[in-house]
Amino acid sequence: MQLLEERIRKDGKVFPGDVLKVDSFLNHQLDAELLDAVGAEIADLFKDCAVTKVLTAEASGIAVACFVAAHLHCPALFAKKTRTLNIAASVWSAKAHSYTHGNDYTMVVSKEYLSSEDTVLIVDDFLANGSALRAMRNLCIEAGAKVAGAGIAIEKAYQGGGDELRAEGMRIESMARIASMDAEDGIQFC
Amino acid sequence: MQLLEERIRKDGKVFPGDVLKVDSFLNHQLDAELLDAVGAEIADLFKDCAVTKVLTAEASGIAVACFVAAHLHCPALFAKKTRTLNIAASVWSAKAHSYTHGNDYTMVVSKEYLSSEDTVLIVDDFLANGSALRAMRNLCIEAGAKVAGAGIAIEKAYQGGGDELRAEGMRIESMARIASMDAEDGIQFC
Repeated sequence: MQLLEERIRKDGKVFPGDVLKVDSFLNHQLDAELLDAVGAEIADLFKDCAVTKVLTAEASGIAVACFVAAHLHCPALFAKKTRTLNIAASVWSAKAHSYTHGNDYTMVVSKEYLSSEDTVLIVDDFLANGSALRAMRNLCIEAGAKVAGAGIAIEKAYQGGGDELRAEGMRIESMARIASMDAEDGIQFC
Repeated sequence: MQLLEERIRKDGKVFPGDVLKVDSFLNHQLDAELLDAVGAEIADLFKDCAVTKVLTAEASGIAVACFVAAHLHCPALFAKKTRTLNIAASVWSAKAHSYTHGNDYTMVVSKEYLSSEDTVLIVDDFLANGSALRAMRNLCIEAGAKVAGAGIAIEKAYQGGGDELRAEGMRIESMARIASMDAEDGIQFC
């Protein structure tokens, strides 16, 4: 998606340790009109999939997911992240690992809002190694819900998480796919 | 706002301990079209205030804030909640208290995204005792930003936090104001 790639080129900052800082428009400050356009594009790609629910993870996935859901005329649901070991019986849960924070955590959603009657579109701001996306897929599997696929704002394609999941049969549509990046040479898209 | 009041009456659940559960459309599962309508209404009320930024707090404020920002054609910014005592020099910070979780926390926003050139509309999903709203106002004061006011989805008016802040001169527009509620008699709006 050209609009997003241009914005990443203009405002994204690459730091050592494989960090792409896009918190001027995606992670902290949110360019609502850009994210609405990203949401519209993702919604359009999945418009024939009979999606009943958009699933994302707090906090920075919520913005894109809301716009996708508005365009698909269905609800969004955000998984909560917890480090609590005692998981309530009323929730579906799945483990994930944060490479950014170097810790494991558990994603939970209420069983009230995810069931075998749902067809789910998973949405997230970032896809790198795929741990969060796998956890959300696992929540759907646990609930018996069908997964239509995933719509992602920025995929760090060179980390391979997306292609592993595609090889397992998951449809993943990323609005910007980064082939490589470093502080000196900048960002190359796929 | 009639649409929101009707939805609260229909799907809101009152539990002992002054708990209003609206996680089927506002806090966990998000009715994106309803929240877009709420956002449009808040944006319309503040359309002549030259708002440059919508400020909210993660996680459940993000959805409404995004829709407000899209309608006002300005960015949204979400304050991050942290329990870390060492606050970086690069952020504005303000303390708040969570009555739900019974703990203190600190809200932070990057200094990059909030400055004396901003006119801020604070947006949140809930207003009860006003602690989160005060903290966001304090972030703005610290940054030297002007506060146009606050747009809230649901105000528990009987808890008084909103009226205290109004008495201090803050403009607060709440889309649904609850006068009283209990599990037996249901919910009364102001």
